[in-house]
Amino acid sequence: MEKNIPLVVPEVNPDHLGLIDVQRDKKSDGFIVTNPNCSTIMLVMSLAPLRSFAFTDIRVATMQAISGAGFQGVAGMAIYDNVIPYIGSEEEKMETESLKIMGTLQGPEVKPAPFKVSASCNRVPVIDGHTMAVWADIRESVDAVIKAYEQYVPPISGLPTQPAKSVQYLHDPDRPQPRLDRNRGNGMTVSVGRVREGLRYVTMGHNTIRGAAGASVLNAELICSRKYL
Amino acid sequence: MEKNIPLVVPEVNPDHLGLIDVQRDKKSDGFIVTNPNCSTIMLVMSLAPLRSFAFTDIRVATMQAISGAGFQGVAGMAIYDNVIPYIGSEEEKMETESLKIMGTLQGPEVKPAPFKVSASCNRVPVIDGHTMAVWADIRESVDAVIKAYEQYVPPISGLPTQPAKSVQYLHDPDRPQPRLDRNRGNGMTVSVGRVREGLRYVTMGHNTIRGAAGASVLNAELICSRKYL
Amino acid sequence: MEKNIPLVVPEVNPDHLGLIDVQRDKKSDGFIVTNPNCSTIMLVMSLAPLRSFAFTDIRVATMQAISGAGFQGVAGMAIYDNVIPYIGSEEEKMETESLKIMGTLQGPEVKPAPFKVSASCNRVPVIDGHTMAVWADIRESVDAVIKAYEQYVPPISGLPTQPAKSVQYLHDPDRPQPRLDRNRGNGMTVSVGRVREGLRYVTMGHNTIRGAAGASVLNAELICSRKYL
Amino acid sequence: MEKNIPLVVPEVNPDHLGLIDVQRDKKSDGFIVTNPNCSTIMLVMSLAPLRSFAFTDIRVATMQAISGAGFQGVAGMAIYDNVIPYIGSEEEKMETESLKIMGTLQGPEVKPAPFKVSASCNRVPVIDGHTMAVWADIRESVDAVIKAYEQYVPPISGLPTQPAKSVQYLHDPDRPQPRLDRNRGNGMTVSVGRVREGLRYVTMGHNTIRGAAGASVLNAELICSRKYL
Repeated sequence: MEKNIPLVVPEVNPDHLGLIDVQRDKKSDGFIVTNPNCSTIMLVMSLAPLRSFAFTDIRVATMQAISGAGFQGVAGMAIYDNVIPYIGSEEEKMETESLKIMGTLQGPEVKPAPFKVSASCNRVPVIDGHTMAVWADIRESVDAVIKAYEQYVPPISGLPTQPAKSVQYLHDPDRPQPRLDRNRGNGMTVSVGRVREGLRYVTMGHNTIRGAAGASVLNAELICSRKYL
Repeated sequence: MEKNIPLVVPEVNPDHLGLIDVQRDKKSDGFIVTNPNCSTIMLVMSLAPLRSFAFTDIRVATMQAISGAGFQGVAGMAIYDNVIPYIGSEEEKMETESLKIMGTLQGPEVKPAPFKVSASCNRVPVIDGHTMAVWADIRESVDAVIKAYEQYVPPISGLPTQPAKSVQYLHDPDRPQPRLDRNRGNGMTVSVGRVREGLRYVTMGHNTIRGAAGASVLNAELICSRKYL
Repeated sequence: MEKNIPLVVPEVNPDHLGLIDVQRDKKSDGFIVTNPNCSTIMLVMSLAPLRSFAFTDIRVATMQAISGAGFQGVAGMAIYDNVIPYIGSEEEKMETESLKIMGTLQGPEVKPAPFKVSASCNRVPVIDGHTMAVWADIRESVDAVIKAYEQYVPPISGLPTQPAKSVQYLHDPDRPQPRLDRNRGNGMTVSVGRVREGLRYVTMGHNTIRGAAGASVLNAELICSRKYL
Repeated sequence: MEKNIPLVVPEVNPDHLGLIDVQRDKKSDGFIVTNPNCSTIMLVMSLAPLRSFAFTDIRVATMQAISGAGFQGVAGMAIYDNVIPYIGSEEEKMETESLKIMGTLQGPEVKPAPFKVSASCNRVPVIDGHTMAVWADIRESVDAVIKAYEQYVPPISGLPTQPAKSVQYLHDPDRPQPRLDRNRGNGMTVSVGRVREGLRYVTMGHNTIRGAAGASVLNAELICSRKYL
């Protein structure tokens, strides 16, 4: 969360790589670009197509997979037949990182996005795939929001690891589901469904691919394509 | 949801049994009292101690156990290593029943409570125990809300099936958890924890005991104690 | 189990397709070839490389995945946090089918293999992959048995769906494991490990691929390659 | 496994406490009595009623609960949707401890029972309760074996922690099951079912109660009742 270190999700804020130039002014030739938290990635990917609706208030309840804590991170005895309604510092990360990623690059730093995130993070007995129930104070109709998802074109294209659809809207009433949808786009697609009055929706993505390893690769591909390397 | 049929949670709205007199005026000597949906019961139990804070806006994301759907209700293949972000008509029930239960008995009917509930219901791989992440637009401090839980005295007492504590506040940062807390008070206690800015909290209760069988018995005990039987 | 209908596992008894000629003698041009039960397939695949050791007594305890019962076959409430030590008629199938598959084609019928199988079948909370603990009365050394697995060459080759290794021996002491090994060879490889004195070993294969859909495709490919179609 | 230290399961070999006198001869007033491994306890409890049938060959495949490894013992990522066919030194313990427990006290040591145990130990995704598929070379009829279970009277009685039935035979074809049967007799009863030709049966007991904490308490009660303390 350092001011001149970009926190990048390629489909959301590729322009934040401009901070690399700020870093180079100050230091040497090297530079640092970081990945956000895996839960933050799913959330901002699902919010990117809704940007023009000018929401200011996001509430998100997560149901996160056990792989998110690393192989030894969650004991079988702790999570089996259980929900753990707490993940250390996860809520704080989602609440601050999201604003930076969706913020605006202004000179040598990023001005945070003008909305507020309130998160409630839970661990559930799922191997891979973070599912989230989201509320956004959007006054547009359900149809307009679904249309925004369907017509969404991310600001980058053609990177090798980028999936055909970065954000996929699913019309079935009971989707997305982690076991059925986490491998869409080789695990790089974030799925969204159940947009309904409220405005509420559900989003889900593969936490160790889209949320970690794949995110790093895609960032590296973006940096290369922009000739920073 | 018939106007003259009370939907009763003994610790929340025992006075709604007054509708029995309305029924008797109209019909014969018999009467009908119904149990709310199991998720509704957990929610209103957790809101009862906060009544004086005059909230108007509740958002609740549920993580519900598979036993809530009956023994054959959810296939192992459907729920194992998975989250199903949809439970048919569950959200509607929570959104309407809660207002009736927390409403005011006025003459021959119940005036719904003046707040709005927006629910997002999910099935998770847990045997028993519905967990819920709740947001309420309460402006009081976290401490004031926790104090309200700790000092809460339900409007009934002494019924055989009623637990020592109908609502128990847990101070550990990672509680309540279904496997660890669902059997409190022989399954009749609703646990609450993680009150924090937002205002957010987590609540959890045993869906087949507090939410179904035990709820019916407690209702019957209340009806007897009030001499309707 | 009709006398003139072959029960075929391509890598084990491709020559049993000779029964097709017997069928054609009797009837019309059409013919019937059947797939064995999924558990039987894993067992006979793991026994095929050991054929020359002349065992006569097999004991097998299975730990079978819930997908083996079909999507609605096992309720979540029945299998979660549980083992069900009974699968209707599964033990009988393993005990009779194995002898037919590993039997000898003699004229118009198959003479059953001269060994006995005693099975104890269990359902466990695993999505895909049947694991089996096997005892065989083999007097050869552990090394000789492992060598037999490593040097095993199945009697068929070059079929499109056939994996590079039909039977793969794993040397790690805690393998095979269903979640880690079920997708070997696109789900068509049967894994074996833990050969030890007794003579004991563990085998595991993907029940809906190797044990069902893939088995049918491989059978069809074999039938085509042998010019029966 | 020291020669003069008894390994005691009160319902199986209470007379082995005689080794306490041997210890006292050699040393001081104190003495040591140990609990067997939890899997060994289930096995020997299930074999005790069959003692008179003079078996010499036991094969047992275990499906053991994750609590047996301690709270942090098995990572959620390791066991969820999986079977781990290996538990370090568990097979060796079952194979040696069982013979000592069912052996005969002769002078200053226990002569091991004259049978052989061959174990194949597996971890499955179950919270509590070790299930075992057992083969014994018993030539008696299935009915005779079931009768032996039903008429079994353990050699001790009246200890506070001892359940009404130490070994309970269940006639339903799909029992015992860990989630349904592990708490019989407050977790101290070992359940047996599915005796069938082979001779095969299934046994199951609560590993942390019957197999650990409760076993220690019962041993202490036995020692007190025999006036060693």
